[in-house]
Amino acid sequence: MTTNVGILGATGAVGQRLIQLLDPHPQFEIAAVTASEDSAGKTYREAAKWRIDTPIPQSVADLEVRQTDPTYVPNDVDLLFSSLPSGVGEAVEPKFAEEGYVLSSNSSNFRTDPDVPLTIPEVNPEHLDLIEVQRDERGWDGAIIKNPNCSTITMVPPLAALDDAFGLERVDVSTLQAVSGAGYSGVTSMEIIDNAIPHIGGEEEKMETESKKLLGEFDGAQVRWNNFAAAASCNRIPTLDGHLENVWADTSADVTPEEAAEAMASYPSADDLYSSPEQLIRVFEEPDRPQPRLDRNRDNGMAIAVGGVQETTNGVQFNCLAHNTLRGAAGASILNGELLLEEGHL
Amino acid sequence: MTTNVGILGATGAVGQRLIQLLDPHPQFEIAAVTASEDSAGKTYREAAKWRIDTPIPQSVADLEVRQTDPTYVPNDVDLLFSSLPSGVGEAVEPKFAEEGYVLSSNSSNFRTDPDVPLTIPEVNPEHLDLIEVQRDERGWDGAIIKNPNCSTITMVPPLAALDDAFGLERVDVSTLQAVSGAGYSGVTSMEIIDNAIPHIGGEEEKMETESKKLLGEFDGAQVRWNNFAAAASCNRIPTLDGHLENVWADTSADVTPEEAAEAMASYPSADDLYSSPEQLIRVFEEPDRPQPRLDRNRDNGMAIAVGGVQETTNGVQFNCLAHNTLRGAAGASILNGELLLEEGHL
Amino acid sequence: MTTNVGILGATGAVGQRLIQLLDPHPQFEIAAVTASEDSAGKTYREAAKWRIDTPIPQSVADLEVRQTDPTYVPNDVDLLFSSLPSGVGEAVEPKFAEEGYVLSSNSSNFRTDPDVPLTIPEVNPEHLDLIEVQRDERGWDGAIIKNPNCSTITMVPPLAALDDAFGLERVDVSTLQAVSGAGYSGVTSMEIIDNAIPHIGGEEEKMETESKKLLGEFDGAQVRWNNFAAAASCNRIPTLDGHLENVWADTSADVTPEEAAEAMASYPSADDLYSSPEQLIRVFEEPDRPQPRLDRNRDNGMAIAVGGVQETTNGVQFNCLAHNTLRGAAGASILNGELLLEEGHL
Amino acid sequence: MTTNVGILGATGAVGQRLIQLLDPHPQFEIAAVTASEDSAGKTYREAAKWRIDTPIPQSVADLEVRQTDPTYVPNDVDLLFSSLPSGVGEAVEPKFAEEGYVLSSNSSNFRTDPDVPLTIPEVNPEHLDLIEVQRDERGWDGAIIKNPNCSTITMVPPLAALDDAFGLERVDVSTLQAVSGAGYSGVTSMEIIDNAIPHIGGEEEKMETESKKLLGEFDGAQVRWNNFAAAASCNRIPTLDGHLENVWADTSADVTPEEAAEAMASYPSADDLYSSPEQLIRVFEEPDRPQPRLDRNRDNGMAIAVGGVQETTNGVQFNCLAHNTLRGAAGASILNGELLLEEGHL
Repeated sequence: MTTNVGILGATGAVGQRLIQLLDPHPQFEIAAVTASEDSAGKTYREAAKWRIDTPIPQSVADLEVRQTDPTYVPNDVDLLFSSLPSGVGEAVEPKFAEEGYVLSSNSSNFRTDPDVPLTIPEVNPEHLDLIEVQRDERGWDGAIIKNPNCSTITMVPPLAALDDAFGLERVDVSTLQAVSGAGYSGVTSMEIIDNAIPHIGGEEEKMETESKKLLGEFDGAQVRWNNFAAAASCNRIPTLDGHLENVWADTSADVTPEEAAEAMASYPSADDLYSSPEQLIRVFEEPDRPQPRLDRNRDNGMAIAVGGVQETTNGVQFNCLAHNTLRGAAGASILNGELLLEEGHL
Repeated sequence: MTTNVGILGATGAVGQRLIQLLDPHPQFEIAAVTASEDSAGKTYREAAKWRIDTPIPQSVADLEVRQTDPTYVPNDVDLLFSSLPSGVGEAVEPKFAEEGYVLSSNSSNFRTDPDVPLTIPEVNPEHLDLIEVQRDERGWDGAIIKNPNCSTITMVPPLAALDDAFGLERVDVSTLQAVSGAGYSGVTSMEIIDNAIPHIGGEEEKMETESKKLLGEFDGAQVRWNNFAAAASCNRIPTLDGHLENVWADTSADVTPEEAAEAMASYPSADDLYSSPEQLIRVFEEPDRPQPRLDRNRDNGMAIAVGGVQETTNGVQFNCLAHNTLRGAAGASILNGELLLEEGHL
Repeated sequence: MTTNVGILGATGAVGQRLIQLLDPHPQFEIAAVTASEDSAGKTYREAAKWRIDTPIPQSVADLEVRQTDPTYVPNDVDLLFSSLPSGVGEAVEPKFAEEGYVLSSNSSNFRTDPDVPLTIPEVNPEHLDLIEVQRDERGWDGAIIKNPNCSTITMVPPLAALDDAFGLERVDVSTLQAVSGAGYSGVTSMEIIDNAIPHIGGEEEKMETESKKLLGEFDGAQVRWNNFAAAASCNRIPTLDGHLENVWADTSADVTPEEAAEAMASYPSADDLYSSPEQLIRVFEEPDRPQPRLDRNRDNGMAIAVGGVQETTNGVQFNCLAHNTLRGAAGASILNGELLLEEGHL
Repeated sequence: MTTNVGILGATGAVGQRLIQLLDPHPQFEIAAVTASEDSAGKTYREAAKWRIDTPIPQSVADLEVRQTDPTYVPNDVDLLFSSLPSGVGEAVEPKFAEEGYVLSSNSSNFRTDPDVPLTIPEVNPEHLDLIEVQRDERGWDGAIIKNPNCSTITMVPPLAALDDAFGLERVDVSTLQAVSGAGYSGVTSMEIIDNAIPHIGGEEEKMETESKKLLGEFDGAQVRWNNFAAAASCNRIPTLDGHLENVWADTSADVTPEEAAEAMASYPSADDLYSSPEQLIRVFEEPDRPQPRLDRNRDNGMAIAVGGVQETTNGVQFNCLAHNTLRGAAGASILNGELLLEEGHL
């Protein structure tokens, strides 16, 4: 028994990744794809400029693209993955939720709303129960749950490991982000070849706020955000996929690099979810790892890689890496979909 | 009246930059170039694989390359610029100093030795007087002075401005470094295309120690290192020239971003030195600047660019950029040479 | 005495290069800049996203951007440089010509029209006299002259040298083109990093037709196109500036590589024009030259570089390179402007 | 029943690809790996700087690396894959053949020797019988067979299709080659970022001679080389994997692009060999394909992709692409190994 799913915003960079990951997925079956109005009515093959180095799955290639509106999506679709631009997501996602659809959304809108679950299944699955709060407050039959931004998701699992074991006081984080994070046309070649850009609009704030919500406590009614100090500096570099981050983490308790590495390496994955890797955080001993091109694809792009763990002023310093359109976007939404299924929300 | 200068290690990446900068220099005249034994006897044109996009200066192209040994360097050379690999520098530079030569060296050996001046003329010119201590202790007629590592030199002027005005307590710094920093063959294309490497051997330590020495106080006998806490994380990215750095600076006194930017922008340059730019630190208001390709060449590659100045946990956070083989290496050595000349040490 | 000039389409990639080149130009003075409607009324600094690594010239930064319409351009402007998108150029350039303006245009529209001079001053300056034919036919007081496409202009001077000396029978040419040729946003980073694209829309045809017109004979009334066979294959590669081309040229007469190289190296430049380099075609003996990054900037980016001249099936094979936005676009238009001035057409 | 195989030169870029491909191979089992003397005695994991984005196969990681000498290779190894540098291959491969080993070699030495089979199993499997000539002449029990150079192998299958159907008269070919073709350290980042190099030492000659031998006729005693005219121009570009080539093919008979495409698309693969793709030559209709990053990995990197088929002066012009270290090196050697097995030579 598989669950019928739909993809809102299926032709974009994350939409293509969703299709690539969902096609072989044992629990989900792609039943509908939507895009903007001018793609509606075309086959997916015609509508999408497919940019992944594996072929378009045959079953999706011939699907008719629908308009991103509840009217056009069949009722037997039980779960919608959304990778809409945030402006569109803000306008359209509530309509779907109102019509009873459950959305696992990668769009950045609503992520820090108090009644919207923002979850990484291995880190804060209990936040999913905010769904009940959301339904009460908004009167929806459906629901909207969110995964965090790709740069946030890369650092949060190792930070969660540290917070659990030693208490997190302050985080300074510098990112080296791949161009795919901006979507297919987000960064021009003239901007980035032989260059780096020390600014990604809104990204620093996302990292600082989302991480505090993710590491916050859900008391049954609301999430009390974690109150560590966070300061991010976000850079775009000429890399295709994989966000690399340098993190300085001040902790409440003393911690040695070995203890920190051990806490990360033993941080549990979500065994019962199909897309969660066997080991969530892989800790490298080689000082020059992780590297985006060599390490982004481990465990189907769903692992978090950590390296360079060392002492720093008031805690530990380390590097972390995740595949930004897999673990950081499409894979994150699917994992949340698996959690919704597991927890009986579909 | 120009001063005859020689270049030790003239065929490497920094050696080529030294030639490019010295050729039109009004105070210096290239009289000798040295390289490894197998280049000795060839003309410079034959010995060097010239890789700069301006032609080899005619006057240098036909110079005979000499062995890197005092025996082979003419006596009328008053100043030697050294860009030798550090191992070679360690072995050879003292021989030259013993023979009476004054060396302005970019090689990393000896930089943190107590009696070796490590100077950025705009920041700590008074450290140059360590020469007397050095001569006393080592019994040399000549002398060795050093400029810092390219990644250090990028952040130290803005840090000096902050330290002077607000007191520096702690620095976390992440670097995005260009491949030219590793020399012409230091980074293979397969290592770095579509990739980033979160480790540069020894670089983090250089940034942490050299910056404390540079911002230390010279009391006439020794330099008392500045005692702020420093933690660096160094990354190589696919950029040709220009090191970009994200800095978090905790200060003793409260500071607003505006005050920090003002302190940096008004930090004095060295007016009387030819290669010092009119404005040492240029502060951008555009949040996406400085960028390596757009900003590395300002003021002949000798300016420090700063941007993204903003509040952070206990101070300010900012980005800085300098051209690593100009301001960060060849230009730094030449500027030290100009200081030596100005201060009457030649 | 300088000539007042205007720039149509001044905010784009070629427009910025025009400003960079015209600012220090001894014969021309920038008196007006135009752009699309939504930029009109702003200062140039506000309207343009300046992307060149030298600062915006002060005199231009504060100019008010005008609409691209004859109504808004002052009458004392004697020459207009046009770098409009071809669709806009097609619609607007005739209006300016009708109003009496002389246009030196880089836009691709009209290039192969029988009464429009398509000129490279060093190659076919006599084609400029088509202006009279054009004025007769169109009843204009002004005139439109064109420079060729950037990929055409790279190979035509060496081909002209071969055609003059040995007769050209057939040309196969493969291009490795820089991303700047597509304008600032023409190629996304996700398209081109770790990739190459073996197709540039319309480019092959431009190379095949424009080269035959350029190397054709003007008999006073019309240009009889050269009838060599031409087949181009155009590729985009991850390079910022500089088009590199591999050419196979079949000749009527026998030719040795030495003779071919000699014919190219001695092909005359246009001595009396300010922007024409001293030596038009520089022939490298090193087999691995020319290279885009090392050789594109020679002679202010106005030289044509040739290398790898060798025997091939029925003639010679060689590589050539030119800076696509300087010699291939902005510089080409300015050189045509200088020819117009020299020939008394302004 | 699997065949025990060894890998000579197992730590290099092609050696790593051999291991990646052989590990899951149903017919071969890696029993020995060799490298240079200073790696001998180490485990493979210690000796190799593994640079592929899939992990080192466990079975190989712990193998002891042996010296590249028959003395150190076990006798039960029935087939050796060789990816030695050509100088080493020239010295060492005959020793192995003399000792009775059969070598499927990717090294460039001996490729054009009259008694050495140079084969692409889908194109000229019958050349394999040169083994008998080789054994007669050299008195070996073993044998050496070769696959062609990576740039040759990319164009030869489509050329074979054209030659069979229409007769090949002349080929002009321009290559855009990936950096991995030069080995892990072959191209420095400073050479190739924002650049292209129009020369690869010896590569043009390899393409011109190897293709004539491959498309030649074996009459039982010798291979009579095909006598079409061939002229190659080889370029290195900033791409990691995948050689893209522009080909102009003059044919004896008239040919339309449709006929040419049809001849290529229907050219048979080697059904009975494990690594031969179902369809050898995939012909794209989209004019902007094939592209290295999007198309190099099809059919495990063993397919040849063709696109842009169009009329040219005396035949057809097209683009072709293959993965240079898979189809062009490691995969090519393995495919030859499969042919040796199939034909009973092991």
